[in-house]
Amino acid sequence: MQKELFKQLETPCIVIDMAIAEKNAARMQAAADACHCRLRPHIKTHKMPLFARMQLAYGANGITCAKVSEAEVMADGGADDIFIAYPMVGDFRIKRAMELTKRVKRLILAVDSMEGAVLLNEAAMAAGLILEVRLEVDTGAKRTGVLRTQAAWLAKQIYGLSNLNLTGIYTFKSLVYHDEATTDKHLAGREEGDMMEQISNEVREAGVPIEDVSAGSTPTGLEVAKTGKVNEIRPGTYLFNDYMLCREGAAKPEDIAVRLYATVVSVPCKEYAVIDGGTKTFPMDILLDTPPYYYPGYALVEGNDDLQLRRMNEEHGIITSIKGDTGLRVGDKITLIPIHVCTAINMQNQVYLYDGENLKQERVAARGRLV
Amino acid sequence: MQKELFKQLETPCIVIDMAIAEKNAARMQAAADACHCRLRPHIKTHKMPLFARMQLAYGANGITCAKVSEAEVMADGGADDIFIAYPMVGDFRIKRAMELTKRVKRLILAVDSMEGAVLLNEAAMAAGLILEVRLEVDTGAKRTGVLRTQAAWLAKQIYGLSNLNLTGIYTFKSLVYHDEATTDKHLAGREEGDMMEQISNEVREAGVPIEDVSAGSTPTGLEVAKTGKVNEIRPGTYLFNDYMLCREGAAKPEDIAVRLYATVVSVPCKEYAVIDGGTKTFPMDILLDTPPYYYPGYALVEGNDDLQLRRMNEEHGIITSIKGDTGLRVGDKITLIPIHVCTAINMQNQVYLYDGENLKQERVAARGRLV
Repeated sequence: MQKELFKQLETPCIVIDMAIAEKNAARMQAAADACHCRLRPHIKTHKMPLFARMQLAYGANGITCAKVSEAEVMADGGADDIFIAYPMVGDFRIKRAMELTKRVKRLILAVDSMEGAVLLNEAAMAAGLILEVRLEVDTGAKRTGVLRTQAAWLAKQIYGLSNLNLTGIYTFKSLVYHDEATTDKHLAGREEGDMMEQISNEVREAGVPIEDVSAGSTPTGLEVAKTGKVNEIRPGTYLFNDYMLCREGAAKPEDIAVRLYATVVSVPCKEYAVIDGGTKTFPMDILLDTPPYYYPGYALVEGNDDLQLRRMNEEHGIITSIKGDTGLRVGDKITLIPIHVCTAINMQNQVYLYDGENLKQERVAARGRLV
Repeated sequence: MQKELFKQLETPCIVIDMAIAEKNAARMQAAADACHCRLRPHIKTHKMPLFARMQLAYGANGITCAKVSEAEVMADGGADDIFIAYPMVGDFRIKRAMELTKRVKRLILAVDSMEGAVLLNEAAMAAGLILEVRLEVDTGAKRTGVLRTQAAWLAKQIYGLSNLNLTGIYTFKSLVYHDEATTDKHLAGREEGDMMEQISNEVREAGVPIEDVSAGSTPTGLEVAKTGKVNEIRPGTYLFNDYMLCREGAAKPEDIAVRLYATVVSVPCKEYAVIDGGTKTFPMDILLDTPPYYYPGYALVEGNDDLQLRRMNEEHGIITSIKGDTGLRVGDKITLIPIHVCTAINMQNQVYLYDGENLKQERVAARGRLV
C-alpha cells in the first residue's frame, strides 16, 4: 500500500485488497464451473452486500446465509436467491423468513428435525405459503443436522407435509474424516462426496425426489465438487482466505485479501509492546498450543517471525518477542494477518476497501445480525 | 420475566434488568461516597449513553472510556467530563481527541511514554490547545503504563511540556498481587492503594503537583477507595456484574443484571443440543480448564447445573449434558449468565432493556468503536 494511504488508516482496522478478493472469487467460480457444480457462497465471511454482488457477478447461483437477519441485509443489497443454511426454528425467526420469501425470487430454508418441520409447516399453512426447504444431514461435524441413519426417514416425513417443498439435502463437514478432525482436505472431501451420494440415494429410494445435494466448505468444497456427487458447494472463506486456510493447505499466503492494522501505543520495556486492539478487536476462536491447530498467536505479525500476539485484554494486545526485544516503538503501525478471517471481520463495524489506488470505508452491514 | 415478554424475545439476545442495574449503580456510588472517593465509571461494560447518564445521575464525577471514538458517542449522549484512560497515540486519534476537547467541559487524555507525550504536545501546540493529561503507571498488569521506577522521572518530563497539563496519575491493577494473579481482592486492593500512594508521593517530590490519583477495577475498586490513598476509582463491570465477578467474590448472583437468551434449534441426539449462537454471539475471552479461572463453559446455563456450553462454531453453540441427556427440545428457549459481561455485550448491536413490565430495544451505540 502507498505510504500516504498507510498513514491515513485509523487503527485498529481491517483492509481488504479488492484485486485479491476478485481473483479469489473468479478462481473458485472457474473451479466449480469446471466440475459442473453450482457455487452458492456463504456470506458469513464478508457480511457485506457488495461482496455478495461480486460473487454473483462471477457466476454464483445464489448465496448462503446463516441467519434470517443476515439474509434480510443481503436481500436489501440485491441478492434474490438465498439459502438460509440453518434450522429455521423459533416463531420470531419464521415470521421474518416468511416476510422475506415474499420479496426475493427464491428463498430456501432449512430443517433438521420433525418438530422444527411441523412448526414451520404450520406457520406456512397459516400464512398461505409454500416454503422451499432443504434437510440438513450431519456427516461428522456433530452440531446441527439429522443423524445420517435417520435422514431418509425424516426426508419422507417432511415430504408429506403440505406446505413445505423439500428440494434438497445439505451438509457441513469440512475437515472431518471418519468423525475425527483431519488436515487432509482430499480425504475429507472425498468422504463428504461419498456420504452425500449415499444419503441422497437413500432419500430418493424413500420416494423423495430431491434435486439439490449441497456440501462443502472452503477447505473441502472443490474436493467434493470434483467427486461429481453433489451439485452445489457453499464455501465462504475462500473469498478472503486467512492463515488457518494456509495451514490447511487450502490457500496460499498471496491469496489472503485481508490485513489487520494496529498501532503500538505503549512500549514499557523491550520485552513487550502494546497495540491498540485486544479481545474486542481480534477474534479469540483460535486454539493456541493445541495440536493439530497450532497458531502462533491471535493474529500473525506480517513480515516478522519474532513477534507474537499471544495475550490480550479488552483493548490491549500484548506483542512479545521470542528473542526478548520487540524492537517496536510508540507510534509504529504494524500489519497482521488474521488467523480466522470470518470472526475477525465480525468484530468490525466497517472495513477499508483498497483498490490499488484508494481506500474507502464500507460498513459490515450484516455484522451482529444474530437472529 | 412475564411469559408473554419471554416469548417475544428474538434470540440470541441479551436482556438487561434495569432495576438491578440501578441498584448496582446506587450501591457503588454510595460506597465510593462513604470513602470520600470520586467515582468515574468505565463505560466499556455497557457502551450505551443511557447507562452513562444513569451513573452520572447517581453522582459519578465523570466517565472513563478506552477509545476516543467511544468518547465521541458518550459526548453525543450527554457526558461532558470524560477521561480516555488509554495512551493517546496516533495522529488520527489525537486529531479526533482535539476535536472532542472543544465540545465537552473536561476531557482528560492519557500518556505513558515520553515519545507519546512529545507527539501529543506538538499536536496541541499546533492547534493552540492546552490538553489535560494523566500519566498511566503499571502496577503489575504488565500492559500499558510506565514502569513504576520511571514514573516520577517521566512525570517531571511531561510537566515540562508546554501544552500538556499533567493533573494526575492512574493505574489498572485489578486482581494482581505482587505481580501475580490472585483471587484476594482485599490484598490486591490494599497493595494498589499502597503503590499509588508511594508513586504519587514520588511524583510530587519530583516537583509535579498532581491532584488526581486514580485506580481501581470492579473487584478491587472499593478496596482501594477504603485505603484513602486514591481520590478516584474507575470500575466498570459493577453496573451489570457477571459470573466471573461472582467467582472473584466481588458480586452476588442476585446482582447480575444481564441474561443471554438462546433458542434450541437442533437436538440430533440426547447427548447434545444446538443453540442459535456461537463464537459470533458469545465472547471467548474465557479460560476453560485453567485454574484459578475455571469456568463451566462460555456461558452458564441458568438453573441447570447439568448443561454446559463448552463447544462453539460461528453460529452454533453445542450444549452438552454431564449426565448424558440434555432433556432439551427443539424450540426451547434457554437462559444463560455471561461469564464476562463486557465482551458479551460487545458482540451485540442492540440489547433489550427490561423494566419489570416492558421490553425495549436499545442500540449498543459505542460497540465496535475501536479507534
